[in-house]
Amino acid sequence: MAKLKKSSKDAVGRLAALRAQLKLAKLDGFIVPYADEHQNKFLPPRAERLAWLTGFTGSAGLAVILADEAAVFVDGRYTLQVRAQVDGDLYSYHHLIDEPVTGWLEKNLSKSTRLGYDPWLHGVRGVECMRKACDKAEAEFVAVEANPVDAVWSDQPPSPQTPIVPHELRFAGRASTKKRQELTERLTENDTEAVVLTQPDSIAWLLNVRGNDVDYTPLPLSFAILNADATVDWFVDPAKVSDDLTAHLGNGVRCHKPDALGKALDKLGKAKSRVQACPDTTAAWVFHRLAAAKADIRRAGDPVTLPKAIKNDIELDGTRAAHRRDGVALTRFLAWLAATVPDGGVTEIGAVDKLAEMRGGGEHFRQLSFGTISGAGPNGAIVHYRVTPETDRPLASGELYLVDSGAQYLDGTTDVTRTGAIGTPSAKMCDRFTRVLKGHIAIATAQFPAGTTGAQLDTLARQFLWQSGLDYDHGTGHGVGSYLGVHEGPQRIAKADTAQALKPGMIVSNEPGYYNEGAYGIRIENLVAVTVTDAIEDAEREMLSFETLTLAPIDRACIETSLLSEAERAWLNGYHARVMTEIGPLVDENTRKWLAEATQPLS
Amino acid sequence: MAKLKKSSKDAVGRLAALRAQLKLAKLDGFIVPYADEHQNKFLPPRAERLAWLTGFTGSAGLAVILADEAAVFVDGRYTLQVRAQVDGDLYSYHHLIDEPVTGWLEKNLSKSTRLGYDPWLHGVRGVECMRKACDKAEAEFVAVEANPVDAVWSDQPPSPQTPIVPHELRFAGRASTKKRQELTERLTENDTEAVVLTQPDSIAWLLNVRGNDVDYTPLPLSFAILNADATVDWFVDPAKVSDDLTAHLGNGVRCHKPDALGKALDKLGKAKSRVQACPDTTAAWVFHRLAAAKADIRRAGDPVTLPKAIKNDIELDGTRAAHRRDGVALTRFLAWLAATVPDGGVTEIGAVDKLAEMRGGGEHFRQLSFGTISGAGPNGAIVHYRVTPETDRPLASGELYLVDSGAQYLDGTTDVTRTGAIGTPSAKMCDRFTRVLKGHIAIATAQFPAGTTGAQLDTLARQFLWQSGLDYDHGTGHGVGSYLGVHEGPQRIAKADTAQALKPGMIVSNEPGYYNEGAYGIRIENLVAVTVTDAIEDAEREMLSFETLTLAPIDRACIETSLLSEAERAWLNGYHARVMTEIGPLVDENTRKWLAEATQPLS
Repeated sequence: MAKLKKSSKDAVGRLAALRAQLKLAKLDGFIVPYADEHQNKFLPPRAERLAWLTGFTGSAGLAVILADEAAVFVDGRYTLQVRAQVDGDLYSYHHLIDEPVTGWLEKNLSKSTRLGYDPWLHGVRGVECMRKACDKAEAEFVAVEANPVDAVWSDQPPSPQTPIVPHELRFAGRASTKKRQELTERLTENDTEAVVLTQPDSIAWLLNVRGNDVDYTPLPLSFAILNADATVDWFVDPAKVSDDLTAHLGNGVRCHKPDALGKALDKLGKAKSRVQACPDTTAAWVFHRLAAAKADIRRAGDPVTLPKAIKNDIELDGTRAAHRRDGVALTRFLAWLAATVPDGGVTEIGAVDKLAEMRGGGEHFRQLSFGTISGAGPNGAIVHYRVTPETDRPLASGELYLVDSGAQYLDGTTDVTRTGAIGTPSAKMCDRFTRVLKGHIAIATAQFPAGTTGAQLDTLARQFLWQSGLDYDHGTGHGVGSYLGVHEGPQRIAKADTAQALKPGMIVSNEPGYYNEGAYGIRIENLVAVTVTDAIEDAEREMLSFETLTLAPIDRACIETSLLSEAERAWLNGYHARVMTEIGPLVDENTRKWLAEATQPLS
Repeated sequence: MAKLKKSSKDAVGRLAALRAQLKLAKLDGFIVPYADEHQNKFLPPRAERLAWLTGFTGSAGLAVILADEAAVFVDGRYTLQVRAQVDGDLYSYHHLIDEPVTGWLEKNLSKSTRLGYDPWLHGVRGVECMRKACDKAEAEFVAVEANPVDAVWSDQPPSPQTPIVPHELRFAGRASTKKRQELTERLTENDTEAVVLTQPDSIAWLLNVRGNDVDYTPLPLSFAILNADATVDWFVDPAKVSDDLTAHLGNGVRCHKPDALGKALDKLGKAKSRVQACPDTTAAWVFHRLAAAKADIRRAGDPVTLPKAIKNDIELDGTRAAHRRDGVALTRFLAWLAATVPDGGVTEIGAVDKLAEMRGGGEHFRQLSFGTISGAGPNGAIVHYRVTPETDRPLASGELYLVDSGAQYLDGTTDVTRTGAIGTPSAKMCDRFTRVLKGHIAIATAQFPAGTTGAQLDTLARQFLWQSGLDYDHGTGHGVGSYLGVHEGPQRIAKADTAQALKPGMIVSNEPGYYNEGAYGIRIENLVAVTVTDAIEDAEREMLSFETLTLAPIDRACIETSLLSEAERAWLNGYHARVMTEIGPLVDENTRKWLAEATQPLS
């Protein structure tokens, strides 16, 4: 509670300061989204304006500040968190999806209100929707030149300035020149002369470079223009670019200071170039500048997203190696847990630290791929739980413990969830765990024709929970990068269709779950790679299936064996035998003994 | 072949006559779609312009006639049929989906070409797409006042003029006044003052009337405007409206001649009314007239579609009764088949006639709900097969026989497919049949949370075929009306998402299949109704499931029992026991004996 009061006091002063600043700027209001100039998932500290202003630390949301009112919008994951972190006397709470900000603007803006927004922090599509809402209310929607939050945030951190390094060909698997050539061939077919790229992972993939500007993902923050001749104009802080990197990039990449982007867009406009940019992920600023320069703008998705998602053979070999190393770390952690927890004293934070220690030593290890979710008992039911000293719980007997973690290795990115029983689980826990496991196995063993989307497979993971009137409120799987984002598109496995077919080489997570609020959470997550299935006798279609990448035991103590079919039991036993074969020789004697026991066939 | 030559000769003359007529009308080309003014699925004979002109009798397609070229576009179902029916010297063949007509127009129209179209035969969205294509080619896209095909089709049938009859409340379950009130309440919330309805099944449902203007569906062809005061202006041939019908309709429905529609739209425009119409199913003519009259047009789907799809309890009771009667007819037919086929001499046409005879006597029977698909051996693999004297095959030993049929009863519409072995089926046939059956059972036994779409369930039906590298190229299920269309929206079960959740009261078909081209086809189809599931212990979500409506035995001789799980076997035995209990007492002694055998539990 002390913490809440403190942040509340801050929040009062900060809100007042922002309102004063808005007045100076002749604005009646301002929109503060959770966003940076690159639509990153993890923001650099400098871009944490929403958290600084309101206290809300979730990874999606938006605040609207008016002279007499302020509203904060978050999605279903953060309904509780926003109430704990944001002062209800200052802000009204709203649901980002059910009660969209556009509707709120229509109702709450008065005629002639000047509502400001930072065109660097919104995609052009979002700006257009909000502008429509302002039009309905006869309010003005005004792009600012400088963000007023920055003006009042006196100790705002500087832009990150970490060095950018080459991503070696032995990890990337394909030279940047080849990637650029392939991309521009397709663009030329569509008569496109240039593409503006603003997503850092797209640029990192295209140029085979990595950085360290945000937590958990090796991203260099920058902008780029890919030209039809396969050259790239790269807008990046020169301090981040070493001579080695320049040599790695070669002649086809011209470096410019970031603030040269505007002039470059003007030049494209003057030449009446056909320029492509993504209306969802590229800042409205880019579109506005291109439009002002009279460029022929083509709205289309980032063309890097799909080829980046389809891993080449070297990336796939790398990810297999990374998963073996990660499996060793997780197995050592699970063995430690089994040995230590019965003596008491292990808490969620202690487990996070121990797991980080186990991973830290691995070859090619660079950092964790996201903040570890370490939830004992009821905390396991909070899907995006992050333990704090205030919420830290011991791993207590009779409860389940859920740990969702991953790491960035030079040769691959991992993401794995295991749920285990501390002491003896209840029959209900085992029933639920087994239904989740059956769903996991249904995805792991699915075969499907080329052209199938993740949405078409999603129900396979849920069907056994549905039979008991249960479900989970998150997707079944997300795309994963290769030493890049632990979440990436365009593919996923979820209820809502993305229209993106699963393609050989894509990596997705397979993570059904079940959450009993106030009691326990269950999730079983492996990463899988889409592969071509060519061993079916008399097959009439081109079929695909999944190769499971993650290697770590699944807690047999939580399985109600009678609920498994023969085929499901065979899959689990086969998987465990593989874990023993691949991980067993790589761990110490004690861990190996524990693993041998943990991977015994089901009786 | 004789038939092809004859239709070819006709086609030459007709095409020449149309081209001459286009010249008179100062047009360089014309579009001839498979369509009527109501976007009906089954056309009245008068609207069969595409078939008359080209010879193509499929139920989807389009021809473009230019001075020196002509092209016919059909979808994947009709690739073979179009080549058999349409003269390749006169028309080039194109795939409606892979090679859309808009692309063809862009490439093949010359500058200033005047391409005509009949604005009554295209939705406004379709017109806009084609207009864009014409714009790109700098051609003109010209709405005609009179269809030039009609001018040269000397023996074109007249518009159908069958009497319209009341659909009694004991079948409809809800009074038209109530339906209209409920609809207009929702429309008023959206500030809509009038809706133009042009889909005959929507009007039939809304007014509780039925007609006989097209084959297989009891539709009266007409137009209607639903007003905000819940009254209807109905544009219908007065010859179809008896005094009885007028009494049934009551004061809230004002009848007008069909040609009064234009003036009524003008009046709405003059009053600056907010008028809703569906851009996909309402003729472009309506939009053009409303726009010319300066109405405030709101594009939105037909508001009747969803409430019509959600059957009330009386409609559901009616459909159960209709399915019992239909089950009796089909069971008698199957018993007759079993007794007669071994002696030889039964052909596909003979079977069609016998089945029609069995159905003909039933209470409330009015007509078949579509042309029976009766396919022996390789003909069963043709998904939309319609037997002709030229293709008629005997039901021969060692082959499979597929029969897909249905009927219109006053209290419900049926649609059922059974596949059976003549003699002993091969092991491969049984393997495939059993995989189809497992998919059918997976749908029949599915439980799913409220909000789930048919697309989310589709994979359940395909998974067992996928495991063998097989699939089928049609949807798993379509909506079915209540003494209305055997195909209706908005729900379906298919790979592509419709975003329409399945709602309690909706009826859909459950019809996975497998087709081995040149050898045999398998399809197992029951109709099912969406129901609320409230008997799951500890359920946390509002769950839905399916009630199977269709009652007829599934051929046990085709089942490879070892492929069935315990639960699947229990479902089939339970279903068969129910068929025996419900149908057994309603059939003659011999049929009952056969049925008792056919519904024995699997050994």
